[in-house]
Amino acid sequence: MSAARPGVALVAHSGGPTPVINASLLGVIQESRRHREITALYGARFGVEGILAEDFVDLYRQPHEVLEAIGRTPSSALGSSRRENTEEDLARMVEIFSKHNVRFFLYNGGNGSMGTAHQIAAAADDAGYELQVIGIPKTIDNDLVQTDHSPGYGSVARYFATAIRDIDADNRALPKQVEIVEVLGRNTGWLVAATALARAKPNDAPHLMYFPERRLPLHKFLADVEGVFSRLNRCVVAVCEGQLDETGEPFGADVRSGSRGSLAMNVGHRLAMLVSEHLKLRARSEKPGLIGRASSLTISPVDWNEACLCGSHAVTAAVQGAGNQMISLVREPGTEYRVTPGLVALDEVAYVEREVPPEWRSENDILPPFFEYAIPFVGEVPAFPRLDD
Amino acid sequence: MSAARPGVALVAHSGGPTPVINASLLGVIQESRRHREITALYGARFGVEGILAEDFVDLYRQPHEVLEAIGRTPSSALGSSRRENTEEDLARMVEIFSKHNVRFFLYNGGNGSMGTAHQIAAAADDAGYELQVIGIPKTIDNDLVQTDHSPGYGSVARYFATAIRDIDADNRALPKQVEIVEVLGRNTGWLVAATALARAKPNDAPHLMYFPERRLPLHKFLADVEGVFSRLNRCVVAVCEGQLDETGEPFGADVRSGSRGSLAMNVGHRLAMLVSEHLKLRARSEKPGLIGRASSLTISPVDWNEACLCGSHAVTAAVQGAGNQMISLVREPGTEYRVTPGLVALDEVAYVEREVPPEWRSENDILPPFFEYAIPFVGEVPAFPRLDD
Repeated sequence: MSAARPGVALVAHSGGPTPVINASLLGVIQESRRHREITALYGARFGVEGILAEDFVDLYRQPHEVLEAIGRTPSSALGSSRRENTEEDLARMVEIFSKHNVRFFLYNGGNGSMGTAHQIAAAADDAGYELQVIGIPKTIDNDLVQTDHSPGYGSVARYFATAIRDIDADNRALPKQVEIVEVLGRNTGWLVAATALARAKPNDAPHLMYFPERRLPLHKFLADVEGVFSRLNRCVVAVCEGQLDETGEPFGADVRSGSRGSLAMNVGHRLAMLVSEHLKLRARSEKPGLIGRASSLTISPVDWNEACLCGSHAVTAAVQGAGNQMISLVREPGTEYRVTPGLVALDEVAYVEREVPPEWRSENDILPPFFEYAIPFVGEVPAFPRLDD
Repeated sequence: MSAARPGVALVAHSGGPTPVINASLLGVIQESRRHREITALYGARFGVEGILAEDFVDLYRQPHEVLEAIGRTPSSALGSSRRENTEEDLARMVEIFSKHNVRFFLYNGGNGSMGTAHQIAAAADDAGYELQVIGIPKTIDNDLVQTDHSPGYGSVARYFATAIRDIDADNRALPKQVEIVEVLGRNTGWLVAATALARAKPNDAPHLMYFPERRLPLHKFLADVEGVFSRLNRCVVAVCEGQLDETGEPFGADVRSGSRGSLAMNVGHRLAMLVSEHLKLRARSEKPGLIGRASSLTISPVDWNEACLCGSHAVTAAVQGAGNQMISLVREPGTEYRVTPGLVALDEVAYVEREVPPEWRSENDILPPFFEYAIPFVGEVPAFPRLDD
């Protein structure tokens, strides 16, 4: 690869925010200042909508201490978008890039966004416009392929591990109740798996967890809950918002139409109602929902550093002319945890979803290999001391 | 009042746990060790159920460092109970106290529990058994009368202030959506009021909040949401789990029967559905629920200290023979925040609920006097820096 043509760098966010997408932004800003090929650094307000509206923030003009502080906050400081782009949008974006001499486009998102990034690169190529497009990985769902894990996941995993530990303490103090905790995740169970990370002893919560990768027959769920309850006189269940029953329906939950089909809105509550109705047990549900992905207090330091690294490495790669690729996190072999940034073609990660490996999960629990995988970047969530310990 | 007869002290928890009820327990343990009138200190497992089952923990036998660590964790380390006591239970408890020479009974709970404490004191009196009963205040709902505020409330208030700040950042980054956040609180709006504590600028969330002290007509709610959305292109609403509509019903939510009548389980979700249906806006809801009262990461240091103080002062009062009273927090006059422990008769606080004063609330917001009241014991929840600041 050869050095890229100098010009403006533009960074944009896409899809749902994460607790560390601003850390990636900080990495982009810090690294950009080191390269004279980058004549200015713009941030698009609200993702592609800001590009199409030419609504840019000149990031070099923001006070340094504000940017440092923003880098430590959750959610997207630039704003994001879920817009589905048309062919016209893509062509228009290339025109706008040309008008502003944007030569480096850094797009921070998940697998759908990597598809968009790839389309933008292709549109620029068609127009004969020299543009380096680099994807910065970001997803709380951890479903991007070709990377060990994705920035954002570690912190939200930490949120759910902490939440389940806390709920477990509550349920232990006031038992005779079934607690359903609805966890983020439509199609993959990476976050539900993380609810087990604070477990220290055999009867610590979650007592049951289910993976949306696999349909869950209602009778099986009820039998599982009944079994745990009869043994412990309480039960904490972690279930994904996207969990489906044996017929492919969300247990009678309310649904709304979303960008990827219909989305159930209250699966946890529906399951609590079904427990109450069928098993005659006191049941309730909690749904932290977006509070989980916006949580400021559970940012994993390793996740934060890696998000920052992905941002800075995207700039380096762009300046080196490594366009049409996404930054990945490569786990180095050895007993000590170490990741280095890698590069992977955008079209290899676009629109592909990585599931939790079947050999890492049982029918209602996550297995040891996951703990080895996740703890290094989620961080330890210490168990609570107890009187009966 | 005269010095009490020496004997065993027994501490028990009642009702829903809080993030700092273990701090009160630590206060009880630390202070008890200073008084030779207290020959042993027992903790009842699972509240009155542990008393009736004579299931006691000898707290002096627990390692000091474990107790110190437990004091910093949420939920009840002893376990709690929602049991409704019969006359027989009360008489049986006095017999058990007599059998174990329990002369000091420290009961940590809310207004219902203070009623129970009062009944136990009366039963002991009827039996001619000398017993000092002292209530330790505890409620996340802040609805106890005759005290400036109650231990537990400050930390859960801090949880909800933090959660709304975080959700606000998310909603700001990905607007065109109405967010309903369901807040704990059946009958009083102390916790929903706290969602405003991290507000720094006029358009910071929550944009609307409602108080269960007042019925909320659906058409009024919808008009409010539409107004905010048309102005900001987004809207974050804080609503209590116990909010009722103009007919006294929970907007069509599912209900279950609870210890104080029927309880709605998904008011936030129902309101999101109604916004979606009537206003054709994208709407969703979050319900952290018990995660709010079990949260380990938002313990307010002032709340923690005051909870500990209430525990230690309960022991002092008991040893001094000040039975049949509850510890209160008295706010001293002056510009600097200072509280001292006071005493109030159990029968004055039993079964009485304190509402948010009508002059502190508007139809859909909390007014400045609340901030002056709450910030000193909730602590500052700093607003996030922003690019457009």
